[in-house]
Amino acid sequence: MSSTSPASGSRPGGRSARVRAQVLEATGAQLVEHGYDSLTVDVVAERAGVHRTTVYRRWQDVGGLLADLLDAAADDSWEPADTGTLEGDLTALNEEILAGVTADPPLTTALIAASFRSAQAARALRAFWEDRYARCAAVAVRAEARGELPPGTRARDLLVAATAPMYHELVLLGTAPDPHLPAAAARAAALAARAGAFSGP
Amino acid sequence: MSSTSPASGSRPGGRSARVRAQVLEATGAQLVEHGYDSLTVDVVAERAGVHRTTVYRRWQDVGGLLADLLDAAADDSWEPADTGTLEGDLTALNEEILAGVTADPPLTTALIAASFRSAQAARALRAFWEDRYARCAAVAVRAEARGELPPGTRARDLLVAATAPMYHELVLLGTAPDPHLPAAAARAAALAARAGAFSGP
Repeated sequence: MSSTSPASGSRPGGRSARVRAQVLEATGAQLVEHGYDSLTVDVVAERAGVHRTTVYRRWQDVGGLLADLLDAAADDSWEPADTGTLEGDLTALNEEILAGVTADPPLTTALIAASFRSAQAARALRAFWEDRYARCAAVAVRAEARGELPPGTRARDLLVAATAPMYHELVLLGTAPDPHLPAAAARAAALAARAGAFSGP
Repeated sequence: MSSTSPASGSRPGGRSARVRAQVLEATGAQLVEHGYDSLTVDVVAERAGVHRTTVYRRWQDVGGLLADLLDAAADDSWEPADTGTLEGDLTALNEEILAGVTADPPLTTALIAASFRSAQAARALRAFWEDRYARCAAVAVRAEARGELPPGTRARDLLVAATAPMYHELVLLGTAPDPHLPAAAARAAALAARAGAFSGP
């Protein structure tokens, strides 16, 4: 998994952490291999080799499992790449998104699909993305400090502009992955930002 | 429904067209009110007041019903608004997308969700969107003729850049609808386009 994608969280030691890792791994594998409809607490417990009451007590239901899978991904030490230029940083981010949504097994796309089934998974996925955008504010701060961006550029607007075409093309429009898209979308957002699209009133 | 959204197709007269209109209306209403899992040929036939064998013969299954709902929307006479400026045209397009994805009943979002369940619905939804982008090429042609865009601007890239933030914010990130977003996303894409983001090699 790319670390702009869910499910690449760190898993510190300890029995409880081991159980969590086993259960979340089983959740992801079951979702990817057999789809959301196959996902039950019992199936996950069996697959993880963990007692079902343990899973019920800690995660309650499928929504809880999916939300924790996304939480586990969010609390890692991911940071956006620092390439030295705004366009470079945004391209690196988009490359990670491309890797995530075209990964095999397709965990990211399975989680996006699951977010249309489970309100809890949807909330967790959105929290995951907002956390990533918040961390990526550093990209805009660095670019402003280098004089690459007008003062007061709204980082989230810039980041959404840079990354939205990735999700739209690859997830909703289902176009074949274009290796030039990460850089092209990054360049378009950077040009818009430099022209003042995300600063001012 | 907004006409950049599915299911606003014209329905010419005749018994066959009437049956089609009834069945597609029932399909959309059932999907919106009770979700994809409730959607069966039998339920749709009953709701439409049409014999089930008629529905099986003409549409085969749920995928066939959803695909035809989208086809019916695509073959209408929709054209992008001609406001006299590139930014105005893109803003008008984004306003229609905003109206579509925030509509009540939420048919557009229900169809997007269904596209993650049915490969046939996914293909039809993508064909619908590609058809809309193809019709919107006129927006870029007019802007180029007015000197608002560099020669050779790639219309689809421009249109995806303008509209992707709408879908990303409203469908995937689930942010509250922002009435300024249509114009802001249009302006960013227009600025990028004027700076050459969608022209050249």
